[in-house]
Parts: sequence; structure tokens; C-alpha cells
Amino acid sequence: MTSVTRHTGPVGYSLPLSPSGTSSMITPPPWHFSGEVVMVDYRLDPAAAECFLPPGLDAGPDPGRAAAVFAEWQWCSDSGTELRDPARCRFSEFLVLLACAHRGEPMARCPYAWVDQAVPLVRGWVQGMPKQHGVVHLTRPVTVGRAGPRMAPGGRFSGALSVRGRRLAAAAVTLEGRSEPPELHTLPLVHSRFFPSWIPGDVAVNELVASRVTGVEFGEVWSGPAELAFPLDPGDDPDMALLAPVEVGSGHVFSYAETLHGGRRLG
Amino acid sequence: MTSVTRHTGPVGYSLPLSPSGTSSMITPPPWHFSGEVVMVDYRLDPAAAECFLPPGLDAGPDPGRAAAVFAEWQWCSDSGTELRDPARCRFSEFLVLLACAHRGEPMARCPYAWVDQAVPLVRGWVQGMPKQHGVVHLTRPVTVGRAGPRMAPGGRFSGALSVRGRRLAAAAVTLEGRSEPPELHTLPLVHSRFFPSWIPGDVAVNELVASRVTGVEFGEVWSGPAELAFPLDPGDDPDMALLAPVEVGSGHVFSYAETLHGGRRLG
Amino acid sequence: MTSVTRHTGPVGYSLPLSPSGTSSMITPPPWHFSGEVVMVDYRLDPAAAECFLPPGLDAGPDPGRAAAVFAEWQWCSDSGTELRDPARCRFSEFLVLLACAHRGEPMARCPYAWVDQAVPLVRGWVQGMPKQHGVVHLTRPVTVGRAGPRMAPGGRFSGALSVRGRRLAAAAVTLEGRSEPPELHTLPLVHSRFFPSWIPGDVAVNELVASRVTGVEFGEVWSGPAELAFPLDPGDDPDMALLAPVEVGSGHVFSYAETLHGGRRLG
Amino acid sequence: MTSVTRHTGPVGYSLPLSPSGTSSMITPPPWHFSGEVVMVDYRLDPAAAECFLPPGLDAGPDPGRAAAVFAEWQWCSDSGTELRDPARCRFSEFLVLLACAHRGEPMARCPYAWVDQAVPLVRGWVQGMPKQHGVVHLTRPVTVGRAGPRMAPGGRFSGALSVRGRRLAAAAVTLEGRSEPPELHTLPLVHSRFFPSWIPGDVAVNELVASRVTGVEFGEVWSGPAELAFPLDPGDDPDMALLAPVEVGSGHVFSYAETLHGGRRLG
Repeated sequence: MTSVTRHTGPVGYSLPLSPSGTSSMITPPPWHFSGEVVMVDYRLDPAAAECFLPPGLDAGPDPGRAAAVFAEWQWCSDSGTELRDPARCRFSEFLVLLACAHRGEPMARCPYAWVDQAVPLVRGWVQGMPKQHGVVHLTRPVTVGRAGPRMAPGGRFSGALSVRGRRLAAAAVTLEGRSEPPELHTLPLVHSRFFPSWIPGDVAVNELVASRVTGVEFGEVWSGPAELAFPLDPGDDPDMALLAPVEVGSGHVFSYAETLHGGRRLG
Repeated sequence: MTSVTRHTGPVGYSLPLSPSGTSSMITPPPWHFSGEVVMVDYRLDPAAAECFLPPGLDAGPDPGRAAAVFAEWQWCSDSGTELRDPARCRFSEFLVLLACAHRGEPMARCPYAWVDQAVPLVRGWVQGMPKQHGVVHLTRPVTVGRAGPRMAPGGRFSGALSVRGRRLAAAAVTLEGRSEPPELHTLPLVHSRFFPSWIPGDVAVNELVASRVTGVEFGEVWSGPAELAFPLDPGDDPDMALLAPVEVGSGHVFSYAETLHGGRRLG
Repeated sequence: MTSVTRHTGPVGYSLPLSPSGTSSMITPPPWHFSGEVVMVDYRLDPAAAECFLPPGLDAGPDPGRAAAVFAEWQWCSDSGTELRDPARCRFSEFLVLLACAHRGEPMARCPYAWVDQAVPLVRGWVQGMPKQHGVVHLTRPVTVGRAGPRMAPGGRFSGALSVRGRRLAAAAVTLEGRSEPPELHTLPLVHSRFFPSWIPGDVAVNELVASRVTGVEFGEVWSGPAELAFPLDPGDDPDMALLAPVEVGSGHVFSYAETLHGGRRLG
Repeated sequence: MTSVTRHTGPVGYSLPLSPSGTSSMITPPPWHFSGEVVMVDYRLDPAAAECFLPPGLDAGPDPGRAAAVFAEWQWCSDSGTELRDPARCRFSEFLVLLACAHRGEPMARCPYAWVDQAVPLVRGWVQGMPKQHGVVHLTRPVTVGRAGPRMAPGGRFSGALSVRGRRLAAAAVTLEGRSEPPELHTLPLVHSRFFPSWIPGDVAVNELVASRVTGVEFGEVWSGPAELAFPLDPGDDPDMALLAPVEVGSGHVFSYAETLHGGRRLG
């Protein structure tokens, strides 16, 4: 049996708290991520984009610039332990990015995100990313055979998001050639760390934070024309419908890695 | 398009914040629950139980008293909207309850809980319940045919929890006769509302709260001899292994309802 | 180790064949079913209905009569073993029923069915039911609390089917009063037992069979006005789009049980 | 509406039959596959291996030689249509291969297989592969960042199989260097095409067939020491327990592609 002393009570970086802290659902940062990304640049109504920005942020020089990002990730802590259980270290994600600025610094805002695993979902809430549960599918590139696209001209990659059994987003990119990392994926993310109120009279925790990231790596970036649709019935959530594309730009397919260390509060 | 004004930024009871608040993943309390429960009383090592109690709680008059609870729920807000989408209003849950006391008042502590849907998972964290993702299966009673137990003597009900593809808990109850609501399921729950730290130098939100519940209803309670096992490899999480049964008591099967309103801080 | 003799090779009612037959995915019939049903009567274009009937069947006296059936089942073999593992004995189902006749005998034809578990899916193919994989959700009646409908006037029950992340069917029934078992759910089912060809030059197994059923039990049947939609993009499968409702009738909610023994060939 | 004629009734390569055949769950072969494989050679009790071979097959020159294969696939028909929906074209698989021989020709026999999608499951039964439903996880190689192994010395790859919430197989391979395609993965597969009986007095379809495959491609093969365990409770299925490893050999990680055209009957 684990040897414990009773003075402090159960401990941990997150719930569940336990005698020695080994039960914590979330391991403390840093968290390392390596993944495959299918991303589509698009534009939405600038007035709509602005409605999603909290005080302290503005739309910057190019209001309405946005991107839809489908990704398939592996993640681990510094120890790498999670990689030993492939049921634990993988997840898929879809998110929307909006271009914005904080005191003149270009940043990216994520108004919506979905993941297919609970650990990255809760980890999202710790850092301020509004992750919900969704089922995300991506095409993977292949190097042998005919059952998939190549990372080469003509390769066609798709992404799809379903939430509670309904398709909310679908995209496709047909590769034309090599390009540079798409700018919206290189900007620092700015989140609202938010913990709802529970005791009558209390207010929610709500603070503007930027993520501290190191170890950013892009693999080869391939780009080309893209399709993007949010086939949402607007009746379901009129706010989310505000983010629908008014113009679809280029798509990009690439490998990406980063390490997430924590946050810094924005004044 | 939703008409919005820009002064306050996006709003909502929880993330995702949005212009009019309709995107909030969590609807504000109260939340109504109606469910079917398979519950097994058991005893664990009293010293182990105590290690899971935070400052402010003690083990009370009967240390080591515990229960394993499998439940299948429907839930809704006051509007009842969620009941219109059966993909939204149902979830299954497994949790452990430990008897404890706060300043002499008998209460129940939940050191571990698993649910199969993200909304009740996050709602758990809002109130301080340490919910993780698991797959929970229960037998349901039947009133016709042979493919299930009856709510009658000899009816055998089972519950099972799997997490990341491994069976963590299994229980069975064979009904003998009618009984009273099991006491551990009637006590107020006391949680640690906990929001992990993210900015270097900050400390986690961590406050002891009791849930405010009304509308408690028990259907017929049937009880009888029970089986309970936590077939966990203790190497996986030595802390969770501390909660294994040293003695298994009676099992209970019943319908249950309550309304959850929020919390009160315990001094 | 199991004692085996080598002369006959591995055995079993179905694949996987194994030395003593214990690995068979499907246990031999009879199979017992007990379930909860939400069913909506509707009418489709009679000409479309006829296109789904194989030689030997005709549309009978009321062409175009149909029903959409959502059900949540428990099942077991004669031994009842499967009920000991609630991860094994439960599944959900959606199917369409078309009225038809064989030599003047009224029967029901199932052109499409979806289940959420692989064992009933394969069992469907053994008997000739064209089961595919889908996610099916139903509202369950409650007897305590506010989070669900009662089996009483005003109770509103819903059903939903999603396939590969897209909603294919949705229905709702608002109870008005007690009624008789809906006729389409009382007719014998007539299937095409079909095993695709694999060796060049061979033809598929294809035989018209009726299911042999005993032990039919209906619980209380409650009925009332209903809604039904197949929100399918017809581009996906123009044949399935033929089955869309042109008129929606009454809905029914009831418990149901039967035992399925095998089939008889129709001449 | 689809224009149809009534003479032949509904058609299709498989169920569901429909007026123009567009509803068939299974598209007719050929089927193209491209995937990533984690494979571990092992030996089991030769007497046990023999018990899984049907008449017509013998154990060949090296009885007891076997492999455990975890794979993540994309697939498509000749048209490539399935690749447009990433929710449709991907699946994961675990299978066991046993070395055997037919009239002196070395072949591979698959006594057990699990996949996580229904289409490849049913397609397995069409060709005689005993596929059941399981959840299969693999580590994927990464080319950027720290959250995954590289295709390079020291890279550690894992595979895991869970069935109905219980872990049935787990493996790991640590790469040492380049090697040749593992022999058991290059042999023709020999299956028992089996369709259970349903009408009293009938017998099951049961015929020995070999798969006809073209377009075999291996990417770089990396190999090294491996671990393999079937942590099954033998009480669950004593036949499957016969296949447990008595000796674990090398592991292999590679990309693989093939096209499957149909079968040939073995005399």
C-alpha cells in the first residue's frame, strides 16, 4: 500500500485528487504534441468575427481572416509514459482560428474546438480552449498502394467533424505544391481561462491568457485549392452559424509539433 | 444574424463563450436527473479511506463504509429541451462513495467517477466531482420476455466499467426483497471544486463545497446479496487500488431522481 | 488446455471456428429479445415500396404502408449467459418495415436496418436482415423525477439514427392514450438470406425466408400523434431516399419480447 | 426518383438489396488497402495450432509458427469514392496468423481477427476471415516533435486490442534496424468461407478458399525485439487461450498495400 500522511489530504495537478497524486486525470505541463494537420484558410463576416473577441482583443489589420483546422495528434508528458499505451496517447481535433490582435501583437483566437478524447478536452479547459466532444476524421497520406493520397501534386485530403451524430464541418484540400507554414497556425493562441460559478453570488474565473509554446516544428507544407462547409442547421446554434465561411481560401497539409508549457496572463 | 453589441464580449455560463451565450457547453443549473441505479455496499480499509479525505472532513462514526454505484441517467434543464434529442439527454455513470463527516454532519465523498459523455464530465468538474471518461454498462429490468431480470426476487442485475479498453469494475446484485433507500445514497455529497493552475506562480482553485439538491425521489428499492470486484492491475494506479473492497455487503436496484441547483461553501 | 481431437477440424455455429466451438461469434438460435420500442406508422410512394420487394412478394392490399421502428434491446441465448455481461447483452436498433404479402399472407419486409453492435449485425445477415452499423438513440420512460417522459398522456418520446456521423432518421411520438399493438409489428418478417459471391463464376446465396418466432409479448401500448423525418441528402443513396415518408401516421411506444428460432424457406 | 423496372426485384453485391443496387453495404471487389502495420512473430504450442486447421490444411514444416498483427488501414474501391469520406475509408485491425500448408504450398491461416468498423467486418465474412468487433490502437511514427517514435533505431511502437471493454492483446516493438518483409505476411491467406445454417435441416456453407491478391507493396521494414501478451482470462474462451505465445520473436513495423480481388476454391 502506498505510504501516506494525513496532514494535507489528497493531492494532484487536477481531479481526481488522491493520496500520492497518481490519480490526477491531467499530468502537469509541459505536454508534447506531434500531429498531422489538414487546414483550410477562409474568411467570415468581419462583424461576426469581432463578436467573438473578448475585451482586450481586437480584430487586427485583417478582420474576418480565419481557418478551419483538422488534426490527428499523439501527445505525451516529459516522461513519455503515455506513448506506451496507444489507447491513451492519440486524439483527433477540429478547431476554428480567428485572426486577432492584443495591443498590436497578432494572435489567434479559438472560438470553438472539438476533440474525441476526454483528457485533451479537460486539458483544453485548463488552458482556456473551449473544447467539446466531437468525432473527427482525416485522410492520412500513404506511401504505398492506392488507398490514400500522396504528399504530392493531386493528393486530395479530407477532414470531417460530427457532433452528437450530425456532421458540423467538412473540408477537402487538393495539393498543388510546396509552400510556407500558414500564418494563422504560427501565431500565439489567446484564450479565456474560464471556470463557471457554482456558489450563489460567486462569479466565474475569467482571465485572458496566452499559451507558452516551444519546440514548434513544421514538416513539409503542401498547399492547394480547398473546399470547406459548415453544414449546420443554424437553428441549432445561431452563434456558431455566425462563423460560416463567406469565402474559402487555400488548404494546407503538414506535420506539426509543439510543446505547451503553461500560460501567461495578458493585462 | 443574431443581433449583438460589442461592449462585453462573448458570454455564457461556460465555454465556449459566444455573442449571445447559446454556444455554452453547459447550461446553467438547475439540472434535473432521472435514472436507474445498481449499487453495492462495501467496506474498504479505513486507513485508506481516510487518505482520500481533504482537510475539513473526517471519516465519521463508521470509517471504511463505501459503495459502488452504476447508473444510467436522463437529464435536462428547466426547459426540458435536452429531452428532445435522445443523443444528448442520456449518459451512464460509475462512481465510488465514501462515508465521511463534516463537523459531525454525515456526508458522502466521491473520490472517483466515470461517465460516458462529455457534458456530464465537465459539469462534474464545475461542481467538484472528479469525473473521467469511462464506458459503463448496466442490465435494465424487463417486464416482458426472457432477456433480462425482473424487479422481483431472483432478478440478477449487473454493472461494468471499462476505461481505455480495460475493465476496472464489475458488480452484480441478486434481488431478494424490498428495502429502504440505501443510506449512502441519501447523504449530501461533499466535493472539492478544483481548477488546476496554469500561470506560473498561481495556485489552483480548491474549495470544499456541498451540493444543493432538491426533488429527491426513490422508486421501489429492491435489495439482495451482491458481488463487487475492481479487477485493476494495481501497477496502473496504486492510489485507486487503495479503494478495493475488503468486504462486500448488500446490493440495491432502484430508480432515483434529483434536481441539482449549485453548491454551498463549507467553512 | 481444452482436450481436442483433430479429425474434423475446428467447429462452431459461426466464424470464428475453433477446436471446441466456444469461439463462435454467434450462439445458435433460439435467441430471446426483450426491448423498448418507439415506432411511427407512415406511408411512402407505393411504386417505390414495390421496387424493394423481391420476386415472390407483392405489395398486398395496402401498398405504401410502412413504419419506422427505434428499439433498445436486451438479448440472450437459452442459457441466459449473455445477461451476466451488460456490455454484451444490449443493443439498439432502427429499422424500416414495409407491408407486403406472400401468396396472400400479409407479411412485413425490412429493406434497411441499423444496429450499434456487431453481434446483432452479423446475426441479422444470418437470417436475411440487412443490418448495417448505426448509432441509435431513444428516450426512455421514467417513473421518478422530471428528466424524461412518463408512460402517460403527454409523454413525448424521441428516436434518432446516425450513420457515419450523419443524422439519417429522427422521430417523436406524443402519447395520447392506450391502444392495441400496431399491426405492422405483429406480422411475420420475410427476408432475403443473402451471402455474396466470392469465387469468379459463383452466384450469391439468395433465398426467401420467413422468421420463426414464438413468445411474442407486448407490454402496454401507448399511442399518439407523431413526427418522422429522414433528413438524408438524397445524393448519398438515391435508393434509400425512395423510402422517405409522404404521410406520417400515429406513433406507438411499448415494451416487446420475442424468441427467434430460425427460418422457413418460402416457395 | 430513380427509374426502376420491377422484373428482377432489388439488387446489389450484398445486403441491403435495393432497386438500383446503390444501397449495398459492400462494394464488389476489387478492394484496395494501404496501411501501417505493427507485427510480432511468436510461437505457440504446435498441437494447439493444429487444432485450428480444417481438413485440407496441415501445419507444414514449422508447426507453431505464428504472428500477431496490428494494422491501421485506408481502403477504397476502384473508383476511389470512399476516400472522399474519411469517416468511411479508415479502419483498424488486429489478427493472428498461423503458418500452415495446403498440399505442400506454404500458406497463412487467420483463426481470429478484430476490426473497429462494420464494413470490413462483413467484408471479412464474405471472404472467410472471422472478423469480430474490437477496438485496436497503434502508435504511429512521427517525423516532427517528441510525441511518438521515429522509424529509426530505438523507436518503440505499441499495439493494443480491447474487446467489449477488456484488453485481449498488447504488443510492443523496439526498432533496431532495417530488414526484409516478415515471411508470414507474404504468404497467401487461406480461409473458410462460412455462412451459418438457418433453416432446420440445412447445413452451413463451408468452403476452403484462398484470397487472390495483387499489388503487394512493402514500404521500409524496420525490426527489433518485441513483447507480446494475450492478457485474457482463459475462462472467457478456452479455445482462444490455446493461441497464447510460448515464445516471442522479433517485431516489425512497416507500410503495406495490396489489392484483393476475390477467392479461388481449394480442392
